[in-house]
Amino acid sequence: MTLDLSLLPDGGIGWADASGPEGQIVLSSRVRLARNLQGLPFTVRARDDHREAVLEQVVKAGRSTRHLADAAVVRLDRLERSERQLLYERHLVSRELAGLDAAGGVRPASALLLGETLGVMVNEEDHLRLQSLRSGFAVSEAYAELDQLDSELGRQLCFAFHPEFGYLTACPTNAGTGLRASVLIHLPGLVLTKEIGKVLQGLSQVGLTFRGLYGEGSEVVGNFFQLSNQTTLGKSEEELLDHLVRIVRQVIEYERLAREKLLSDAPNVVEDKVWRAYGLLRYARSLSFEETMNLLSGVRLGVALNLINEVGVYTLNKLMIFTQPAHVAHLSGRQLSDPELPMLRAEYVRRLLEEDARRLGGEGPRATGK
Amino acid sequence: MTLDLSLLPDGGIGWADASGPEGQIVLSSRVRLARNLQGLPFTVRARDDHREAVLEQVVKAGRSTRHLADAAVVRLDRLERSERQLLYERHLVSRELAGLDAAGGVRPASALLLGETLGVMVNEEDHLRLQSLRSGFAVSEAYAELDQLDSELGRQLCFAFHPEFGYLTACPTNAGTGLRASVLIHLPGLVLTKEIGKVLQGLSQVGLTFRGLYGEGSEVVGNFFQLSNQTTLGKSEEELLDHLVRIVRQVIEYERLAREKLLSDAPNVVEDKVWRAYGLLRYARSLSFEETMNLLSGVRLGVALNLINEVGVYTLNKLMIFTQPAHVAHLSGRQLSDPELPMLRAEYVRRLLEEDARRLGGEGPRATGK
Repeated sequence: MTLDLSLLPDGGIGWADASGPEGQIVLSSRVRLARNLQGLPFTVRARDDHREAVLEQVVKAGRSTRHLADAAVVRLDRLERSERQLLYERHLVSRELAGLDAAGGVRPASALLLGETLGVMVNEEDHLRLQSLRSGFAVSEAYAELDQLDSELGRQLCFAFHPEFGYLTACPTNAGTGLRASVLIHLPGLVLTKEIGKVLQGLSQVGLTFRGLYGEGSEVVGNFFQLSNQTTLGKSEEELLDHLVRIVRQVIEYERLAREKLLSDAPNVVEDKVWRAYGLLRYARSLSFEETMNLLSGVRLGVALNLINEVGVYTLNKLMIFTQPAHVAHLSGRQLSDPELPMLRAEYVRRLLEEDARRLGGEGPRATGK
Repeated sequence: MTLDLSLLPDGGIGWADASGPEGQIVLSSRVRLARNLQGLPFTVRARDDHREAVLEQVVKAGRSTRHLADAAVVRLDRLERSERQLLYERHLVSRELAGLDAAGGVRPASALLLGETLGVMVNEEDHLRLQSLRSGFAVSEAYAELDQLDSELGRQLCFAFHPEFGYLTACPTNAGTGLRASVLIHLPGLVLTKEIGKVLQGLSQVGLTFRGLYGEGSEVVGNFFQLSNQTTLGKSEEELLDHLVRIVRQVIEYERLAREKLLSDAPNVVEDKVWRAYGLLRYARSLSFEETMNLLSGVRLGVALNLINEVGVYTLNKLMIFTQPAHVAHLSGRQLSDPELPMLRAEYVRRLLEEDARRLGGEGPRATGK
């Protein structure tokens, strides 16, 4: 089976269109709900026929909902590794569902139901992982929609539920609401002012946790952090979301103050830093993904501070997605192991930045930045 | 006294116009002859009136020559320090004549006679330092002209000469011919292939020595080396020059081979390196002189290898001169101590590169460098 990404609604990157609230600081918001079907073993203990049964029930139920009536059903277990990695890089499936860990590989009957703005991962750690991914800081909107889907699915499917513990999940840390909400947030100001450690420490004290770009277990690159709730049990969905939103709002405020401080304390240093990042992206002939992310982080800061105006935030978001290894390989028809990927990545980056510069910056970069 | 550089023939940078032979590797060739006037003490032991007498005689004699008939007479001792540094940065006077060393300062009656292509430093370590500076690899041409000037001056002035030792000089290492010839040569290939150490060691075995950009005691920056003869005594001028020319030709050949090797062994690494240097120069908002020189070195290599075609060698040479501290200060009407010089330097670099890109590269940088 070959994955045709163009068949996916919006190509799967609507969440990165930079149209949402606080789009310059918050890249995207995600909410997910963990659900399991009563009477069937949890995914990891299930037999193949159990998992096929789960998938069949979920697809059937999905078809009857408003949001997933026309959903694409992508069977991960019938895709090449590079295709699974593509979906993973688009933040549409987890590393586990994509079977990208060294051990294991893809689990039979692993699948993704992908609607316009909602999706369901099937046979991940839990039978269902309902998820909603939105552009910008839009946690409540993401949940509202997801809640509808949850209700609609709940009318068709019998979710494992305990009157005392709430929704039952494969891992007890997800039990209760089964809800995890997160925002992908860009915090270069706090990193540059070295206040980030204090802020992250504060988060853990109020029940939040942080991860890197790809969620659990991933490293922080390009000053992008995923902030999410740690608890799922003992509070209502609304309480959990309100708490997260309130804390994230504070972090956004801290980031704003840090940026103001940078601009007032060392404007020349900041200006130089962001333009150097732009210059390297504009001309380098070989770029690793990690360096690309770090340079994009610098340029994004420059755009947010109105220092750079010849590139748009949407282009920066697109670059974040399309410069990932599987995407570069896919775009250029190469293997993931191709040693030329860093060169192809650099070529792609140059092309997009040049197009933006021509569109936004007039005939070329300004000579005087002051 | 205010120095008006525009009154100097060709602004004093004709030697950097990149028109000479081997102009991509050899920036310039210089020959100088040390001469002293009989009957007057060497400069360092001379009284002020001695030095004034020397200057008077030299100016008078110079007027009678073909090459210095219309020479500008620049009295260093009547210039501000920043103006003396300007002349030094243009390679027209030595650090000693400009009085730029921490101790000492400028010596009374220090002067420069500056003709179209020739000059005479007066009251440097020796009474006269005749010098010729040419674009590219043109040692013989530089000497031929200088030899004429030496003969013409010798008809008017009585040079200290010993039948056994030849021309007498303040420092015995200059005695004999009083000749020192040097080329300013760009050796990034040998530096990148790490063969430079071997080559420099070889030079010293054949009586040549190397220095940095500004001659004696200066550090190597931007992979620019000054190669010159070590001996002045016991050989004729022609022998010394032939030897230097032969060795430099060899070094040029080694550099060519090193560049070929780089291009065949690691073309992508080289291409990436030179374009990154270009990108930083094109967009940085703050540049130290040393970083500028190192980046210009990378770009110069890229131009020589036909990897970069949107900037000319003459522009690179001009940048080498005009990004030096006193030049940046002069161009922008600031003090040498102004903390904004790195920003002004970066602005100047951006402007020149942008002009060249518009002139040579069409509407902008090419997206595909391959």
